[in-house]
Amino acid sequence: MKAMDKTVAILMASGFEDAETIVTLDILRRLQLQVEVLACQSEPQVTSYFKLPVQADALLGERSSVLYDAIVLPGGPQGARKLGANPEVVAFVKAHDAAGRIVAAICSAGAHVLSQNKILQGRSYTCSGENHKLYEDGQYLDQDIVEDGNILSGRGLGLVFEFALTLGARLAGRAMAEKVAGHIYVPFPGKQ
Amino acid sequence: MKAMDKTVAILMASGFEDAETIVTLDILRRLQLQVEVLACQSEPQVTSYFKLPVQADALLGERSSVLYDAIVLPGGPQGARKLGANPEVVAFVKAHDAAGRIVAAICSAGAHVLSQNKILQGRSYTCSGENHKLYEDGQYLDQDIVEDGNILSGRGLGLVFEFALTLGARLAGRAMAEKVAGHIYVPFPGKQ
Repeated sequence: MKAMDKTVAILMASGFEDAETIVTLDILRRLQLQVEVLACQSEPQVTSYFKLPVQADALLGERSSVLYDAIVLPGGPQGARKLGANPEVVAFVKAHDAAGRIVAAICSAGAHVLSQNKILQGRSYTCSGENHKLYEDGQYLDQDIVEDGNILSGRGLGLVFEFALTLGARLAGRAMAEKVAGHIYVPFPGKQ
Repeated sequence: MKAMDKTVAILMASGFEDAETIVTLDILRRLQLQVEVLACQSEPQVTSYFKLPVQADALLGERSSVLYDAIVLPGGPQGARKLGANPEVVAFVKAHDAAGRIVAAICSAGAHVLSQNKILQGRSYTCSGENHKLYEDGQYLDQDIVEDGNILSGRGLGLVFEFALTLGARLAGRAMAEKVAGHIYVPFPGKQ
């Protein structure tokens, strides 16, 4: 399979939801996309929600002027809050949104990163639980996956394959994403 | 939620399938089980199939005389082969099987670790793709999840939630596993 030239950054702060982050990484690298895991802190080793230390490819600070084709914001009760409270992350997300790049948020990241920082500007999104009630920006939809232009959001961990494959299909094409889904025994989103 | 006293070891060799390993860890730690990630090599940092360096809790060599309530064998083309070719891993798995502890294998680990090393002794299992044809031990079933006594197996990555929740239900009880599944938007195995 030929490597794709599309680029993706996955943003990790300490407390990132382990499986939301790693399943997305796994699917996107299966699609041969150029994925970088960025640590949104001063050291490259980041500890997950469930206490797994993971080594990032680079610090966000080393990539703050890069525009990726897509950026991924994982959940995790503390991880998503830390992303949303980090001015460097917020500036990075806003730059990508302004350039029309895909901004993909799963679980509480839709609320704590996008809505809290008024990045949605009335666009539709989904997120986990009642987190959408904490902030006013954006139109919450009670759906598993929501796509509104360049904003993609997923409800939570149980939807992570659909979330990652939906993102992957936009970057690598639907045919490639369906092939990968079949290989790993995952129904392609929308197919049963 | 009260911490459970049941213990689990997840065995990682370099090339371990990222999401099979991390989703299982995530679900089992959500169930408050005492989970240790063990590096089956001489250093605690292990690099995944998709090139993510992860820090284990301990080396298998430091725990070789411990009996856990369950052990987990992830897939990954090279990761599972490395586990199956490591005499320390094989002795550890056989000791757990002999003591009736749960031995849980996903994806190619059912073939490369269990069947290759004649640990199944005719018992039923599932694994990914055609890997079951490489070895003679064990009865391969074309199913997503197979339980045969203390041997639990899952077909592959797309079944990892079912695999982890089935294991989790055996250790922490079905009620707790159903509660966790609901919280993360995953249908409980067997329920729609």
